[in-house]
Amino acid sequence: MSFADRLAADAAQVERRLQVAVAALPDSAVRQAMGYAATGGKRLRGFLVLESARLHDVPPEAALDAAAAIEALHAYSLVHDDLPCMDDDDLRRGQPTVHVKWDEATAVLTGDALQTLAFELLAGAEALEPRARLALIGSLAVASGAAGMVLGQAQDIAAETAAAPLELDDITALQAAKTGALIGWAACAGPRMAGADTAPLAGYARALGLAFQIADDILDVEGDTDATGKRVGKDASAGKATFVSLMGLDAARARAHELVSVAQNALAPYGPAADPLRAAARFVVARDR
Amino acid sequence: MSFADRLAADAAQVERRLQVAVAALPDSAVRQAMGYAATGGKRLRGFLVLESARLHDVPPEAALDAAAAIEALHAYSLVHDDLPCMDDDDLRRGQPTVHVKWDEATAVLTGDALQTLAFELLAGAEALEPRARLALIGSLAVASGAAGMVLGQAQDIAAETAAAPLELDDITALQAAKTGALIGWAACAGPRMAGADTAPLAGYARALGLAFQIADDILDVEGDTDATGKRVGKDASAGKATFVSLMGLDAARARAHELVSVAQNALAPYGPAADPLRAAARFVVARDR
Repeated sequence: MSFADRLAADAAQVERRLQVAVAALPDSAVRQAMGYAATGGKRLRGFLVLESARLHDVPPEAALDAAAAIEALHAYSLVHDDLPCMDDDDLRRGQPTVHVKWDEATAVLTGDALQTLAFELLAGAEALEPRARLALIGSLAVASGAAGMVLGQAQDIAAETAAAPLELDDITALQAAKTGALIGWAACAGPRMAGADTAPLAGYARALGLAFQIADDILDVEGDTDATGKRVGKDASAGKATFVSLMGLDAARARAHELVSVAQNALAPYGPAADPLRAAARFVVARDR
Repeated sequence: MSFADRLAADAAQVERRLQVAVAALPDSAVRQAMGYAATGGKRLRGFLVLESARLHDVPPEAALDAAAAIEALHAYSLVHDDLPCMDDDDLRRGQPTVHVKWDEATAVLTGDALQTLAFELLAGAEALEPRARLALIGSLAVASGAAGMVLGQAQDIAAETAAAPLELDDITALQAAKTGALIGWAACAGPRMAGADTAPLAGYARALGLAFQIADDILDVEGDTDATGKRVGKDASAGKATFVSLMGLDAARARAHELVSVAQNALAPYGPAADPLRAAARFVVARDR
């Protein structure tokens, strides 16, 4: 199976699990908006959960709740990031954002409830040992809360009004928290389920997350609103420091490719079984959305 | 020890645990706002956790993380409820609300991270068996998400633009979700930790939660901004249907007192050991804040 087919097959499984979880909720505008916000996307994080689980002999059925959980959590972060008081985005995955299609109050509640759903899915992942579920829940809280993703968001907001522009080290630390922590959680989910060492996949994810963010900055300059499904050129026009603005386009591209090699090499202990994860590393810098 | 002293002693313990958890996070505006939002309040939910735990021979030290978790979750709900796009409140516990003291983006992130902290505290409650922790996490997710607290919030928002005003049954269902579900979770935390039957405390909490909300509506009419620490008279001036507007003040008061009896009677299986919880039921209708 090609990498694209494998990614699409995993994404379809995760999508179904998420929509079943949302459909089980009582009807409300929030439930409808949750289903809407949890539709589409690359599902890279869900893919990382399923593939890292396979590497540790945890079958996809057993890992599916965790894959759906990380995508619910990611969807929550997008709904809140898009709010007028945050990034103020009107377009996401080619569709109006939740606060545009509904209203701000519904968008706040939708993000809130998607976060809750992530923890509910993990708590109820019956195919996993209780200790593995608790390890996934505790580590997801650390990765997504005020020491992880939310910290990165707070630093991003603080940067907008800071006296001095961010430098490369600041941006690297900010992105490691804002997007890297969740990618790291997803890649380490497999060994966590199996009670195995997370170090090789943590190393892979650190390089992958940074490559992903550099590629995102390149897409913001070179990409296309039709292909990406979101407004491009926003960072540049806002004068925001990005990997591209700080390094230049060519150096940023070279760094992203270097990181892909680092990510692939970190998988050495797994041998050829980790080829789908190697393909994912190449994919994050080659994608057009 | 009097009920007031016991409530204050439990509240102080919960407050310390919460502030230790917040202090362990990396410094950021969000961390500061989390500490601010998690300060003060009656800590009724935390008290219910500690007292229901005592009833099941779970010592307060073992139950403290769960008590802190429910207060973190409650604090998240207040920070988001106070946002301009929600209830637009500028005063809470006698202090400026988070979005007034910081800004809206920080308030969104602060609520988000307080929710995450709640699940982190539960996952890390080492004194409890893994299965008990998972039961607490799963049930908190159900109580607080789009089938519980968030559903009540969504119904509350929908009511503002609905063609027909809410009737007594609607308000009762709305409040059972919006405030009742978390109170129910707190009261059932003890039997959940011990793997015991939650039915008696669930019955207690159903009556207590409703009495609490009726008392809140009475305070909105009769209370005082200085004592309550929040703006009073907002519901009446917004023409919002409340227990008082639908039943009248005298009938609402009578109903609240009847519910206190129902709550106290539900505790019969526990005998005199449940006296602190009986006192809590009398307290919720007698309080001035």
